[in-house]
Amino acid sequence: MIHIYTDFGLGGPYVGQMHAVLAEAAPSVPRIDLMHDAPRFAPVAAGILLAAICHDLPPGGVVLAVVDPGVGSARRGIVLRAGGRWLVGPDNGLLAFATRIDGAEAWEITWQPPGLSASFHGRDLFAPVAARLAMGEAPPGTPIDPLGLRDAGREPVLSAVIYIDDFGNAMTGLVPPADGSAPIALGIGGEVLGRARTFSDVPPGEAFWYENALGLVEIAVNQGSAAGRLGLSQGVPVSWVAAQGIVG
Amino acid sequence: MIHIYTDFGLGGPYVGQMHAVLAEAAPSVPRIDLMHDAPRFAPVAAGILLAAICHDLPPGGVVLAVVDPGVGSARRGIVLRAGGRWLVGPDNGLLAFATRIDGAEAWEITWQPPGLSASFHGRDLFAPVAARLAMGEAPPGTPIDPLGLRDAGREPVLSAVIYIDDFGNAMTGLVPPADGSAPIALGIGGEVLGRARTFSDVPPGEAFWYENALGLVEIAVNQGSAAGRLGLSQGVPVSWVAAQGIVG
Amino acid sequence: MIHIYTDFGLGGPYVGQMHAVLAEAAPSVPRIDLMHDAPRFAPVAAGILLAAICHDLPPGGVVLAVVDPGVGSARRGIVLRAGGRWLVGPDNGLLAFATRIDGAEAWEITWQPPGLSASFHGRDLFAPVAARLAMGEAPPGTPIDPLGLRDAGREPVLSAVIYIDDFGNAMTGLVPPADGSAPIALGIGGEVLGRARTFSDVPPGEAFWYENALGLVEIAVNQGSAAGRLGLSQGVPVSWVAAQGIVG
Repeated sequence: MIHIYTDFGLGGPYVGQMHAVLAEAAPSVPRIDLMHDAPRFAPVAAGILLAAICHDLPPGGVVLAVVDPGVGSARRGIVLRAGGRWLVGPDNGLLAFATRIDGAEAWEITWQPPGLSASFHGRDLFAPVAARLAMGEAPPGTPIDPLGLRDAGREPVLSAVIYIDDFGNAMTGLVPPADGSAPIALGIGGEVLGRARTFSDVPPGEAFWYENALGLVEIAVNQGSAAGRLGLSQGVPVSWVAAQGIVG
Repeated sequence: MIHIYTDFGLGGPYVGQMHAVLAEAAPSVPRIDLMHDAPRFAPVAAGILLAAICHDLPPGGVVLAVVDPGVGSARRGIVLRAGGRWLVGPDNGLLAFATRIDGAEAWEITWQPPGLSASFHGRDLFAPVAARLAMGEAPPGTPIDPLGLRDAGREPVLSAVIYIDDFGNAMTGLVPPADGSAPIALGIGGEVLGRARTFSDVPPGEAFWYENALGLVEIAVNQGSAAGRLGLSQGVPVSWVAAQGIVG
Repeated sequence: MIHIYTDFGLGGPYVGQMHAVLAEAAPSVPRIDLMHDAPRFAPVAAGILLAAICHDLPPGGVVLAVVDPGVGSARRGIVLRAGGRWLVGPDNGLLAFATRIDGAEAWEITWQPPGLSASFHGRDLFAPVAARLAMGEAPPGTPIDPLGLRDAGREPVLSAVIYIDDFGNAMTGLVPPADGSAPIALGIGGEVLGRARTFSDVPPGEAFWYENALGLVEIAVNQGSAAGRLGLSQGVPVSWVAAQGIVG
């Protein structure tokens, strides 16, 4: 299975062109569009979201991840092998979460296609490499130390909104406190939000936070838009609030 | 074939996560994205639109339908077998149209996955059940009377706009009068619209209604946006208008 | 492989219904969504963009192209065979680029499905024909002279913005001057833009033009929206500017 994760947006020919390359080079391998509106120009936020999504994916397969504002610059293309899965993408922090997995291995992609464009390595470089890996070939590059990757070892946590979905729910880069701990409040933009289990536990229109289905802290309004109501956008900081004030 | 119908919106990781579950559990079964911007939080309108779409689908297969504002509450998950097709989703009216099909059977889903989230039964519950059905397994639940389902037997008709597409065309929950009957006008927001066969029969910019390719009454403007021009949104009421006034 | 290219937009049931038809009639053939936000109501611009996309596709297969403002009118449905690939769609200029390929052949579709709708030939006519071609059948129609098609022989070039992507990059219908020629500037809306190799060669926020990964001249702003910054929309004219003034 090849999982495709990009910030290319919902329109345009880019995703289709990647699919065409993959279908040609690995026709027997199912292709899954994980998401194409990943946090744009924001490899760290996009990597945190990808880490959470990968946690629940079926085991194995290849993750082809392209959030690549530095395309055409000197940043490297990399392959990682971690937790029984291949990951392919730019070395800009996007895949750093995988370096924390025990036994992770990394390669710098040294192969170059004949007609490499300056602006679309997703189609020209990363997709062909992902297809090869999915077909059982070795990474076309040089082994490197995974700890030498950009942001290697960084914990996939960020005290900020990382993604606002189509409902207006605001995912953060925070993970809820461990089960059994006391409920805790979340501070955002001067407001303090209580925790709920899910949407239907809260009256329509009320803002709350909950552990979303990806395991992340998410700010939501039942049958409404949290982003609209609280004026949220990607990058807005959040913080834990206890009875005694801000805690983290 | 597994047909996926949701109100999850066009972005975000939700649809991709469902695809990953389906591809893992039923790798040989084609997956079709019917639509992911179904009328949101509106199971009745979404069910009317789904009924019309299902009418023209190839026979057989599984319809996985998730418009589920009550996720995490006590609403049941159900499986229907109607007209040679499986349908899976929440018991909130969304699938009620299928209870009108002769010989319809129903089951309450009693199976629970180990890690059922509170907010994403589409991925955790309904997708695995749809995959099992597509692989030839029996519904993992208890037979129930289809007439006991929410809105069972309800005619899939609504005198209102149920969906506005990307062109600004406004689909209604009405079905045109039977063939051969006199042309009839449609009233909406104080305006009365005449019937046309299709877009190219009407001058650019003119509003009309026609029987769309789903068999529903649709309000349109040739090469323009009916929603923009007439100020339409989901839920706006419509009514038939005859020479002698409003008729239905 | 069947490549699908439409202006149906990102939402709605239309694309899904076409997929269902294709999956039923040609279950073994991979289906690729090339793009569904092709220039709307603009067959010429859409055809120029499609020509550029086709240039980089894997060889062979079927292109199913539906930008069809005249659906339901007398315009013909056509099949082309050009460069080892099948193309199916309306005869409105959209596929004219393929008539320039040596040895191109054309057919007028004469087959009609039993339940042809007036407004959705993509689902009812073109998708079934594309599926047949993908399964190795002959075009269900009459051979015609490709030079008799609408806009036949027209060079796929337009001195205007043809598409604005999700990043705000504005693709034009121009092709860059041949390699090795002097750098040239692009005039648009009173501004004159210099050429760059790619985004990362330009400071964030600066407008430039470059040869995009489709081989077209594209106007962009590094980590910003060219459309927003320069007030661009589809159809805005562009022109080459040399030291001595406008050249083409």
